Amino acid sequence: MTAHFAPSVTIDSHWKGFPPELAGCSLDAAILQDKRLLNGDFLMPVALLKESAIEQNIRSMQAFAKAAGVELCPHGKTSMSPELFARQLGAGAWGMTAATAHHVRLYRQWGVRRILLANQLVAPADISLVLDLLIADDFEFFCLVDSPEGVERLAEAVRHKGLDRPLNLLLEIGASQGRTGVRSIEGSLALGRRIAHEAGVLALRGVEIFEGIYASSGRGPAAAEAMLDEMAGIARRLLHEGLFAPGEIILTGGGSALFDLCARQLAAVDLDGHATVVLRSGCYVTHDHGTYAAALEAIRARQSETFTAELRPVAALEVWAVVQSLPEPGFAVVSLGKRDVGFDTDLPRPIWHFRPDMGMPRPVGDQLRVTKLYDQHACLEGTHGLMVGDLVGFGISHPCSTFDRWRAIPVVDDHYRMVDIVTTVF
Amino acid sequence: MTAHFAPSVTIDSHWKGFPPELAGCSLDAAILQDKRLLNGDFLMPVALLKESAIEQNIRSMQAFAKAAGVELCPHGKTSMSPELFARQLGAGAWGMTAATAHHVRLYRQWGVRRILLANQLVAPADISLVLDLLIADDFEFFCLVDSPEGVERLAEAVRHKGLDRPLNLLLEIGASQGRTGVRSIEGSLALGRRIAHEAGVLALRGVEIFEGIYASSGRGPAAAEAMLDEMAGIARRLLHEGLFAPGEIILTGGGSALFDLCARQLAAVDLDGHATVVLRSGCYVTHDHGTYAAALEAIRARQSETFTAELRPVAALEVWAVVQSLPEPGFAVVSLGKRDVGFDTDLPRPIWHFRPDMGMPRPVGDQLRVTKLYDQHACLEGTHGLMVGDLVGFGISHPCSTFDRWRAIPVVDDHYRMVDIVTTVF
Repeated sequence: MTAHFAPSVTIDSHWKGFPPELAGCSLDAAILQDKRLLNGDFLMPVALLKESAIEQNIRSMQAFAKAAGVELCPHGKTSMSPELFARQLGAGAWGMTAATAHHVRLYRQWGVRRILLANQLVAPADISLVLDLLIADDFEFFCLVDSPEGVERLAEAVRHKGLDRPLNLLLEIGASQGRTGVRSIEGSLALGRRIAHEAGVLALRGVEIFEGIYASSGRGPAAAEAMLDEMAGIARRLLHEGLFAPGEIILTGGGSALFDLCARQLAAVDLDGHATVVLRSGCYVTHDHGTYAAALEAIRARQSETFTAELRPVAALEVWAVVQSLPEPGFAVVSLGKRDVGFDTDLPRPIWHFRPDMGMPRPVGDQLRVTKLYDQHACLEGTHGLMVGDLVGFGISHPCSTFDRWRAIPVVDDHYRMVDIVTTVF
Repeated sequence: MTAHFAPSVTIDSHWKGFPPELAGCSLDAAILQDKRLLNGDFLMPVALLKESAIEQNIRSMQAFAKAAGVELCPHGKTSMSPELFARQLGAGAWGMTAATAHHVRLYRQWGVRRILLANQLVAPADISLVLDLLIADDFEFFCLVDSPEGVERLAEAVRHKGLDRPLNLLLEIGASQGRTGVRSIEGSLALGRRIAHEAGVLALRGVEIFEGIYASSGRGPAAAEAMLDEMAGIARRLLHEGLFAPGEIILTGGGSALFDLCARQLAAVDLDGHATVVLRSGCYVTHDHGTYAAALEAIRARQSETFTAELRPVAALEVWAVVQSLPEPGFAVVSLGKRDVGFDTDLPRPIWHFRPDMGMPRPVGDQLRVTKLYDQHACLEGTHGLMVGDLVGFGISHPCSTFDRWRAIPVVDDHYRMVDIVTTVF
């Protein structure tokens, strides 16, 4: 399934976690060696992706988008992994979302044919890189603008480089005290006119928001709904003024916590039959044991069962470490630190305990918790009867900040046997 | 200076920040192209190391250690960079400190001949990897133990593998509610006896603490001094019981904030003339604009000028980003996020502002501050007269958590021209 996009993989001794004797092996040769977490084959700590969970997540999110009548353009920044991109595109994703010009370059190396850069393109080297990629090859590309200076810079660069087609832009609408994006209807229309004035050089292809700024705020869903309403209103005004380039009009939003609102509200926007709604969620690919697990519960609570029927994500990313010290009663230190796991939304959560005589890992429930994370150690509090040398499997919160700590991650079956490898480029 | 250790470098299109046209160039060819931050040559964001600052930091820390009568075994986890290791060893470092078995493997690839693993070695694959490295080649190696189970595992593995020399151990002493390490004098002596019982298989070579657990606590220096006193007392008891293997006895401590106390107190410990004091500080190599800048001020405040005369670190690591949006008065969004800069101790601190007509960057003083960091964006508050397209240079706090976000970092001269490259392996 991944053949068209992912480069062939050789196990690198620079990759932490992998069994050392695999260094230099091809993926196929490595899998034949039947390496198992539960046999003690892996260096500690090690991040693992569960094959069954990844497949379920990709399938179920794609099915949700289809049922909701929207397209899925997953944010690739979550994993930055050619193997996962290939799975997502293979399952029917409309394209992949990028965050930087450097991402666009990587995505092109990985064969992605439609790229939505959900960001402004401002620095000279960034603009130049993307235009050179567009000159070299005919792929579909969109980026955001939110200022006249941004429009000027892009128009000048396109003219200077002699790009043979207009650069596709999405007008970004932002919220007060939010992030990027135009703050008013008047500002949006003025910017739309400025882009239309550069017809042939620039093409206004749609409107973009990131409603995810409200994901962790008190204002939450109601604020996101108001933002989506405003977006729809601006899109209609831009349409009625004739400021969009001919063809489909893209309406895009969608972090990983409030995407249901985007799907529901944007799919209902009527732009004379030209609207294509594009969700950019990224974290669904692994889901988590923290912030997105809670977000999904909230989605189920606010939407009907019919609407959420297809959404069945399960946590796919775990990080495992060894108990290296039990220096005080009820206190353990494991070989897992800030270098190995994200800590920007929550500390990692112990979910499994394993010792060879157990056969399979056992859930730890709420008995253990992480109290402190150092660069290379985690302190655990609890009375779970751990012993030095036991393994503890941790769930994560916010997959983005765990993926970027690993150059490659073994994919395992439900018995923790390595069956594939996912590489990353951060 | 780096020729003996660092592998030859070719600029990789997987490296963010670098000028795209350098992809595939050798280091020498890349430097000849005279790439300059201030000419807009780099993709944004980009991390930069200042050549003059790195050299000064390495030289001054080594001079401090020499003047204090101690050895320096820098913690390599800070940078995980073969080029920086080569500079540190070239300047006279005694060895390099590692945090994991995987680090030990990398260090050996980079030619490090003396490695102090400041951690327990517990998981079967980790133990096996290190012993295989020791069987393959004759380098000097030390690791920590803090439990009878740890001693058993190592003794069994050494016997099983048939290592032809004893494995060198340092007994770790920890503090209540701290991290790893034995918590009592009695426990330490019992563990020492257990190791001595395995003479020929294991060798007790010294005592280790990490006083840095107090670096950010209210207890601070006084607690670290008490811990160092306890350590000295235990070392004397171990010596008088004849539990150390023959030869030098290593006393090692030293994070990056309280290393002056280790140097001063441990250098005064008398172990019948056999003590070698080893500091493991790592963050001095780049210093910072945050937590270690403050730590150094504290060192100067508590030590005499004579003792600190050699310590002249300057901040060497900066991350630069472009102003991409000014959506509200006094509010800017720049292209820098959690993927690019550490945020575990403090948010990045804006220190430079640059626009081509300025010639050189200007200090921003206290006018700008980061209010929020997303995965790929930072929000700035302030009234510094920024414009879309301007560059902002940020100082960092805690270099470890910024290094691990970059696979390679351009080294620049004082005019921000690229003169070298530092690679990392995380």
